[in-house]
Amino acid sequence: MIQSTVAELFEKEIKHIDIEVKGWVKSFRANRFIALSDGSTIKTIQCVVDFETMDETLLKQITTGAALQIQGNLVESQGKGQTLEIQVSNIAVLGAADPDLVSKTILQPKRHSLEFLREQAHLRPRTNTFGAVMRLRSSLSFAIHQYFHQNGFNYMHAPIITGSDAEGAGEMFRITTLDPKNPPLTQNGDVDYSKDFFGKETNLTVSGQLEAETYAMALGKVYTFGPTFRAENSNTSRHLAEFWMIEPEVAFMDLEGNMDLAENLLKSVIDYILEHNLEDLTFLAQRLEQEEKSKPQNERSEMGLIEKLKFVADNNFKRVSYTEAIDILRNCKPNKKKKFKFLINQWGVDLQSEHERYLVEKHFKCPVILFDYPANIKAFYMRLNEDGKTVRAMDILFPGIGEIVGGSQREERLEVLKEKMAALGIPEDELWWYLDLRTYGTAVHSGFGLGFERLVMFATGMGNIRDVIPYPRTPHNAEF
Amino acid sequence: MIQSTVAELFEKEIKHIDIEVKGWVKSFRANRFIALSDGSTIKTIQCVVDFETMDETLLKQITTGAALQIQGNLVESQGKGQTLEIQVSNIAVLGAADPDLVSKTILQPKRHSLEFLREQAHLRPRTNTFGAVMRLRSSLSFAIHQYFHQNGFNYMHAPIITGSDAEGAGEMFRITTLDPKNPPLTQNGDVDYSKDFFGKETNLTVSGQLEAETYAMALGKVYTFGPTFRAENSNTSRHLAEFWMIEPEVAFMDLEGNMDLAENLLKSVIDYILEHNLEDLTFLAQRLEQEEKSKPQNERSEMGLIEKLKFVADNNFKRVSYTEAIDILRNCKPNKKKKFKFLINQWGVDLQSEHERYLVEKHFKCPVILFDYPANIKAFYMRLNEDGKTVRAMDILFPGIGEIVGGSQREERLEVLKEKMAALGIPEDELWWYLDLRTYGTAVHSGFGLGFERLVMFATGMGNIRDVIPYPRTPHNAEF
Repeated sequence: MIQSTVAELFEKEIKHIDIEVKGWVKSFRANRFIALSDGSTIKTIQCVVDFETMDETLLKQITTGAALQIQGNLVESQGKGQTLEIQVSNIAVLGAADPDLVSKTILQPKRHSLEFLREQAHLRPRTNTFGAVMRLRSSLSFAIHQYFHQNGFNYMHAPIITGSDAEGAGEMFRITTLDPKNPPLTQNGDVDYSKDFFGKETNLTVSGQLEAETYAMALGKVYTFGPTFRAENSNTSRHLAEFWMIEPEVAFMDLEGNMDLAENLLKSVIDYILEHNLEDLTFLAQRLEQEEKSKPQNERSEMGLIEKLKFVADNNFKRVSYTEAIDILRNCKPNKKKKFKFLINQWGVDLQSEHERYLVEKHFKCPVILFDYPANIKAFYMRLNEDGKTVRAMDILFPGIGEIVGGSQREERLEVLKEKMAALGIPEDELWWYLDLRTYGTAVHSGFGLGFERLVMFATGMGNIRDVIPYPRTPHNAEF
Repeated sequence: MIQSTVAELFEKEIKHIDIEVKGWVKSFRANRFIALSDGSTIKTIQCVVDFETMDETLLKQITTGAALQIQGNLVESQGKGQTLEIQVSNIAVLGAADPDLVSKTILQPKRHSLEFLREQAHLRPRTNTFGAVMRLRSSLSFAIHQYFHQNGFNYMHAPIITGSDAEGAGEMFRITTLDPKNPPLTQNGDVDYSKDFFGKETNLTVSGQLEAETYAMALGKVYTFGPTFRAENSNTSRHLAEFWMIEPEVAFMDLEGNMDLAENLLKSVIDYILEHNLEDLTFLAQRLEQEEKSKPQNERSEMGLIEKLKFVADNNFKRVSYTEAIDILRNCKPNKKKKFKFLINQWGVDLQSEHERYLVEKHFKCPVILFDYPANIKAFYMRLNEDGKTVRAMDILFPGIGEIVGGSQREERLEVLKEKMAALGIPEDELWWYLDLRTYGTAVHSGFGLGFERLVMFATGMGNIRDVIPYPRTPHNAEF
């Protein structure tokens, strides 16, 4: 008797052997055909029982959601839609699932809204959609680690709890063990953080970049892959308060190398899932096609999910300077006809997502890398160009997703960096260690941040970021 | 001209070609021999310059820590201690490093205390020791991901911010965006968390296990690898407030399978670094040997670092029940001679690290798996044995490290779990979703937590957990 997962049964396809599988009942038809799933693949294995010889109480317990141990002979299937089936010799019910209770949950086999599925986020990975999404999420994670590993990068864990709010990338969550009601106060009447756990005010990190830079300037090529946080009260389908980010940082690499790295990474991981996760992708492509049918014709995407992934993997991203982009936008129809909410009338303004979408989805119809942004709409650490007004920043925009990557070449010149910090009121003693990198053997270096959930959205076709992470954290929601 | 990292030069060993490398000066001897490091390997590449034809101002800038771009011809080395060298044709100083400033830092090439290195944690990865430790940390991470990936596990990101303090594994950090000085209060005068970001009290996770269970009961085999937190005021060499943990969770797996999985995983990742990181390990082994020389004879370890790793990879872990262990401890010399701080005189007491060390280092002299612990010293979710007094828990103890793995078979029976929670005062409505796993197709399942930093300590021979993570977080320390 060989114990096996469902995925292994289909991979090995060894027939006429006695096997044992364990899993959950997806459906039970005609008192005869059990579709059994164990989560190892989107496929179920058909288990054929002889109801005439079976104990009736046992038979009654074979209901959707029940956990079974099944033994039998693996044979070629006679039925349509599957290649293999198990001729069952023995069944044990490991855990029943009362149909009355099941009918109140998302386990009931019918269409449920994504909102209802979110309320039962602990059960939703048992559905076909979320099983596929979460297997893809896992596969994408591995593809990312493998890509970096094969290209000589060291994985680095940046700190989650941070004592510095230097980057100013967004509002932060405070971490404390002080008495919430009666915190200790200083003589001035301020909260006395010297009595807090870390002896100072601490927050959840918004980015591991600055710390990653310290490691790049020692190990050459590094990347982080960890959770990051924003305490922003934004309830959109693209924002989470807790999300995972990948941040490579490379010594001696300039902005062009940075764009090459980001483009190669994205193409490589998309190739990986096209090669390894085609069943899950096919299911999600069908799901998306169904969903699109309910949309008006002009809102439907021109490509299916798999087509879109192949397109990104096989075509060069369009590289466009901010200045060129502004020219395109200033002269485009929606701007002239005042269809944009924010009209583009001068160089220097920040782009809104309506502009990014226009460039990517209407004008270029492919992923776009925008670079050389105005200095004053970007972060202090970005390398100032010789023109004195733009910085060596780059953002990658994806169709349907918007910004998926944001990066830059870093300012490696100590004096220029100090001036920039002074102008923005960032105290040097907060970032003495960051400045040290420019004192001891400074060099050109670059990196970027890739929002992992946005990549999963793109790869799965899911439209809401809450549906690509196991337990989403958003304003007023930290369930489970 | 081929651009290359130092690691690639030594891997490919293609001689008599023109190459370009970029890195930092480790040393510069006799105005002629630059040892250049780029962090890709512990090795430096010797770059031979002809000082007679070189610009003198340039020559003066070639000092320890300076960043250089070097072009030249790669040839077989004539000197001792290296196989390759570069006959330099061109040097550019990318970033100087003022020797006066360098002399105040850990970059100065001499022995520094680990404490001093910690104060300059942003520069310490440039040292041989920390470069090696951090490359090993990265390699161990990849080995872990690869092991699970190859064995059909899905990687799952458990939430970092959590609304439940159910596990009770330790004191927690509170996360908040409320006004720290004047928090909103309810009518009863308590802090009104309904006005906080998540609308409730939230903390940093102490473990992703409960959430991982929900995914195991859907996808079969999953694991987490993420940061976890303890707000404990313990200033030991084995505790951090922020540390990374690996938590596999597997449906249909019992405690024996759990022990097998943990043992296989540990052996597999140790094999991986023995195969892929031998240079770094050899350096750290020599470092440890030096360090051991300063210890009294009886405190030195019997095996060198690499010997110890091979021993663990090649030998079975000893599996011992708690009851057997208590018998051994009750009758051992240090207990009888009252050398233990906590004497073992009855079944049921929790083991202290002195007892664990005795079992591992003196009695069995190999890794030990202790299992079947008394129920009342273990967590509520562990599977109660038929004896009604022990639970299907297991801890893995490593020489020099102590507990490296803690796990259990989980209580899959709804009624037993509810009784346990009631007895401990854990409200059911806090964990309704966890109980649901026992309502809808429950099944035997198991998992464990592996402390990643403890594994890195074991693999590198470093004695303090602060020295195996880039930026350690401990009481009163959240620098960088």
